[in-house]
Amino acid sequence: MRRALDLAERGRGFVEPNPMVGCVIVKDGQIVGEGFHERFGGPHAEINAIASVGGASLEGSTVYVTLEPCCHHGKTPPCTDALLKVKPARVVIAMQDPFPKVQGGGIQILASHGIQVSVGACGDDAARLNAPFAKVHQKGKPWVIAKWAMTLDGKLATASGSSKWISGEAARAEVHRIRGLCDGVMVGSGTVKLDDPLLTTRPHGPRIAARIVIDSQATLATSSRLIETIAEAPVIVAVAESARSERLERLAHAGCELVVCQGSDHADRIEHFLRQLASRGMTNVLVEGGSQLLGLLWDTQQIDEVYAFIAPKIAGGSNAISPIGGHGVSNMEEATSLVRTDLRSYQETICLHGFTDFSL
Amino acid sequence: MRRALDLAERGRGFVEPNPMVGCVIVKDGQIVGEGFHERFGGPHAEINAIASVGGASLEGSTVYVTLEPCCHHGKTPPCTDALLKVKPARVVIAMQDPFPKVQGGGIQILASHGIQVSVGACGDDAARLNAPFAKVHQKGKPWVIAKWAMTLDGKLATASGSSKWISGEAARAEVHRIRGLCDGVMVGSGTVKLDDPLLTTRPHGPRIAARIVIDSQATLATSSRLIETIAEAPVIVAVAESARSERLERLAHAGCELVVCQGSDHADRIEHFLRQLASRGMTNVLVEGGSQLLGLLWDTQQIDEVYAFIAPKIAGGSNAISPIGGHGVSNMEEATSLVRTDLRSYQETICLHGFTDFSL
Repeated sequence: MRRALDLAERGRGFVEPNPMVGCVIVKDGQIVGEGFHERFGGPHAEINAIASVGGASLEGSTVYVTLEPCCHHGKTPPCTDALLKVKPARVVIAMQDPFPKVQGGGIQILASHGIQVSVGACGDDAARLNAPFAKVHQKGKPWVIAKWAMTLDGKLATASGSSKWISGEAARAEVHRIRGLCDGVMVGSGTVKLDDPLLTTRPHGPRIAARIVIDSQATLATSSRLIETIAEAPVIVAVAESARSERLERLAHAGCELVVCQGSDHADRIEHFLRQLASRGMTNVLVEGGSQLLGLLWDTQQIDEVYAFIAPKIAGGSNAISPIGGHGVSNMEEATSLVRTDLRSYQETICLHGFTDFSL
Repeated sequence: MRRALDLAERGRGFVEPNPMVGCVIVKDGQIVGEGFHERFGGPHAEINAIASVGGASLEGSTVYVTLEPCCHHGKTPPCTDALLKVKPARVVIAMQDPFPKVQGGGIQILASHGIQVSVGACGDDAARLNAPFAKVHQKGKPWVIAKWAMTLDGKLATASGSSKWISGEAARAEVHRIRGLCDGVMVGSGTVKLDDPLLTTRPHGPRIAARIVIDSQATLATSSRLIETIAEAPVIVAVAESARSERLERLAHAGCELVVCQGSDHADRIEHFLRQLASRGMTNVLVEGGSQLLGLLWDTQQIDEVYAFIAPKIAGGSNAISPIGGHGVSNMEEATSLVRTDLRSYQETICLHGFTDFSL
């Protein structure tokens, strides 16, 4: 199953909004077939693994697959049909499919045809691998990744908003790698005004992230670099119902996609907007600031994963800007500990990466 | 010389305000003697190294010593006398002594007696080892070490001042180890009011750090734990000339040592106070907060060394408190990069340690 999980991982960035899936077939104690879901719309892991055997009999084999085989006609025919055809003795499944059209149905079909089915081997790892996919189906919202770069004394920017550059080149290259695996890169309107960022991925990754601006009053300037480069990647602007119509028309005319977010406050509107993104097929979104937007997302428990880049430099200043604004906690005891953290180094800059415990 | 530096390091915390010094004697390609300055007032490294040989002839040997041998009568007779007596062919010295009564005098005496003297081997390492000692003699101020513990989103405390506990037990144990090597542990009066800290070292290290409160208006409560435990370690209160005399009397009566700091603003007064600490024989001081005091020391370039503990937890809050307050820089490009950084882990908490480039 470890091997199957490693294979599954190779689909990251290519298969979304589908899940990453790997499959290994073992016969007489030997691995005889392997496959993974390689790209969205392409054959599933089980089909690739069966094909890799080249037609030899798989009767009596054991099939290891990281996600319950599908039993419905989607872009491809059901994998359960293909599996029944090759007559394995046993199918070992890491986790049940959270997708509503499957959810145990695949397991039931296999078991009812006399195949021994077991579920749960490396289940935690499989769940983590496809946590974004599961979130979309269980909560109707994309997986939200927060990223910031701060000084060693916790500053995102100076009081005047100056933030270039806190982290080094190697750290910025890592940010581009992450962007290339995401469906969207989100910032607040304040960050666009201050930094006029491109938010494109250089060099390209497997996905082209839409650039998303949370801009309730539709103030995004048509002279911004985002709009100047609109041919390179879409620009989505999330606005409130109260935004002035001439501003909306101006942005629409410039080629932006506008999403009007319903709700009486920021919290309601961001919830509504995230649901809109999921319904557009977005699995994961990288939020790159600023402090206010990260604060709103933190206060409303929307953040699932964190990349905090820390540069060994000191800016000082009681009015400098902190990475996560918003209300925050009153007692330090209520601070949220990240789980499954790991520490990475990018030249001088370190990156602490982890997950919130309200994410899966 | 590497070996001599390792030996010297063993005196840390025991020898101050003297420098740490190590000495290795080599004869016929073999190390025949070793020694280091073990404790303040005790014999110097050279004397211990000579004694370690047990009286055998050292004529024609090479003596490696991490600091220029002294040539004056202090608590012990001059080491140059002892060296001349054993007639080495060569003395290799890592660095000249910055102490005004030596400063090249030792080298001169040895050379004038026909001993081959060379200076500078591992000179940078030797300079770093005794940077606090050198600072006291060159600038008349103690070495200032800043320490803070913050969340991954750069918060020292919540807006209401709650800060317990950001870092874990292992990190707090490390702070106690550092305290045990310092002459003073300094905090601002705000931190005392909020946290009512003990600032003692548990368990004891080689030194007993005085507890220092920067408290211009002498507001320290006699019911504070600092004063309750005054028998365990001295409490020094730095006050301004404007502090009310009845408050000063109350603190003096409670056993505090009062230092009246001259100067028209915080920057002048802290400069004056640090000079006072050096003239009391303090070599190094650990500053543990709060944000205002660290900001003042940062803005005035008083900080030489930094221990930043970072816990993988998130507090949020645009009004939460940042580790270093004060004015800070306006442009991020002006932020100070720490040098010679290293990264340590204390369970979940990481510690980035480094030096300012205005130190040394």
